[in-house]
Amino acid sequence: MAVLGIDLGGTKAAFFIFSAEGVVLHRDRILLRGAKSNAVAELIVRQISASLGTAERIGQPVEAIGISVPGIVYHDTGAVWAPNIPGWDNYPLLQEIKTKFPHIPATIDNDRACYILGECWQGNTRGCRNAIYLSVGTGIGAGILAEGNILRGAGDVAGAIGWMALASPYREAYAACGFFEHYASGDGIARLAAHLLKKTPGYYGELSADPSSINSYTVFAAFENKDLLALEVMDRCLEYWGMAVANLVSLFNPEKIILGGGIFGPAVSLIPDIKKEAAKWAQPIAAGQYVLEGSALDRDAGVYGAACLALRAVREADDR
Amino acid sequence: MAVLGIDLGGTKAAFFIFSAEGVVLHRDRILLRGAKSNAVAELIVRQISASLGTAERIGQPVEAIGISVPGIVYHDTGAVWAPNIPGWDNYPLLQEIKTKFPHIPATIDNDRACYILGECWQGNTRGCRNAIYLSVGTGIGAGILAEGNILRGAGDVAGAIGWMALASPYREAYAACGFFEHYASGDGIARLAAHLLKKTPGYYGELSADPSSINSYTVFAAFENKDLLALEVMDRCLEYWGMAVANLVSLFNPEKIILGGGIFGPAVSLIPDIKKEAAKWAQPIAAGQYVLEGSALDRDAGVYGAACLALRAVREADDR
Repeated sequence: MAVLGIDLGGTKAAFFIFSAEGVVLHRDRILLRGAKSNAVAELIVRQISASLGTAERIGQPVEAIGISVPGIVYHDTGAVWAPNIPGWDNYPLLQEIKTKFPHIPATIDNDRACYILGECWQGNTRGCRNAIYLSVGTGIGAGILAEGNILRGAGDVAGAIGWMALASPYREAYAACGFFEHYASGDGIARLAAHLLKKTPGYYGELSADPSSINSYTVFAAFENKDLLALEVMDRCLEYWGMAVANLVSLFNPEKIILGGGIFGPAVSLIPDIKKEAAKWAQPIAAGQYVLEGSALDRDAGVYGAACLALRAVREADDR
Repeated sequence: MAVLGIDLGGTKAAFFIFSAEGVVLHRDRILLRGAKSNAVAELIVRQISASLGTAERIGQPVEAIGISVPGIVYHDTGAVWAPNIPGWDNYPLLQEIKTKFPHIPATIDNDRACYILGECWQGNTRGCRNAIYLSVGTGIGAGILAEGNILRGAGDVAGAIGWMALASPYREAYAACGFFEHYASGDGIARLAAHLLKKTPGYYGELSADPSSINSYTVFAAFENKDLLALEVMDRCLEYWGMAVANLVSLFNPEKIILGGGIFGPAVSLIPDIKKEAAKWAQPIAAGQYVLEGSALDRDAGVYGAACLALRAVREADDR
């Protein structure tokens, strides 16, 4: 028995065929090439057909499909809102997949939920009942497993930790993406570096040569070389990451928090410092009960989680 | 059929007999008179006996007992840690109650869990699957219902929102009770007023007459009279309460947040301002989906929640 996991991003998508035991049997990645609305769905449908064919050929027919979507998935309708896919504003993705593939159960969830599901299935939070995947990339979000359940909230928006308030006063600049994401996401790191560069006229270093090319990668590269401006940027981020982790520890008392996404990645080496910062702020008993670590699945957490969704659908169908 | 709900505080305890429909059939309140350890348990056992007798006399025998404890309840052992009851450090409370009353099922939980359980049973969060009781009194804690489950976490410490970090840099003063509780609890309000008084030598007002008598009540009284120092204190608290509510909204996407505890109370009139402050910070979709209001049960949320625990125990026994 096999399942198909699909992880949609803003510019590309991963299609992995998995065995029920979590072994990857086949991998495909496609580019979305700036496609919009229906055209994105068509690309997905075409690749699903191809993947189903591949699975047949290798003698492991797909019994269910799971899809991870970067945005909000409305559970009552299966429609999705994905800010990075033009035209996907309440787009009926699940319905479309079900119409095209009526004989294969399909399930859909948001990327945050899939990240923590993936880690719980085949990654670093196996066996946990309380665990959080804090994803720090272009944006920031959290997949939260509490008392064994993925949190969705009243409107499928739970886990929007990019909006966490960590210092007053409020500024209009936070309105687009929230305080925490404004400062401590991939985009935030570049923004903060550019801001400090303007405020530090005496600085001549790696990041002053071409201010227009500053992004999180150039900041990390400069940080590795102990560039003073990059050190200041990472100090600020480290404080915010530590405070956010502390707030999750005090609220959820989890067994594990996974730091994932594009930034962890390069920032994985900072995890011991983040844990030290968090220990200052968090409820001390809870602070002694959790492990903070990187993702075991790295950039594939979402596609593993999508496959896990599919597997759950198969098991629920079997139980009925 | 009736149940007995018991709400323990640091100095007193409430014993209410409830019908299964949530009607209060009898109320008793006892003072703990500075008793310690075993002596507190003895007072409780004596009053349970009295309440059981009362229930028999009114023809509504008690079928289960529920107890709310101000601290941590370890679910695997039923032992409790209650910082305000001397000697209750891993005290085997549940075991003691069960030994003394072997024929009546007894259940125990922490006060935060009982607050939200009580509101869900007979208060303002009836029918909610995602709701939070933010209790602001001497201390600060949160009872969290997420996807229909009360959050406990890996070590029964979940909901320790008094430790929420809302501004850097870290100061040693936060180590005793956490940032949020340090500034925005009942004790925090008094602390902040005393601090601002020292920093404002030109101030002569209600709070300068007898600085040693400043507490949250005198600050609220001065605030009602538009005293400038009290206004400044409440402005700071309002900002922190708003940020904390916003963080709960972004993380949990709840249907309702209840502001309760001794401070709400007098601060209930500030709820519209707190909601306005929270709206600036929170994830905007989630911010449009929740209601912020006071407790319907006021100081009795805990004892209602304790009764609800007892009722659940009866129903679980019936299901078996």
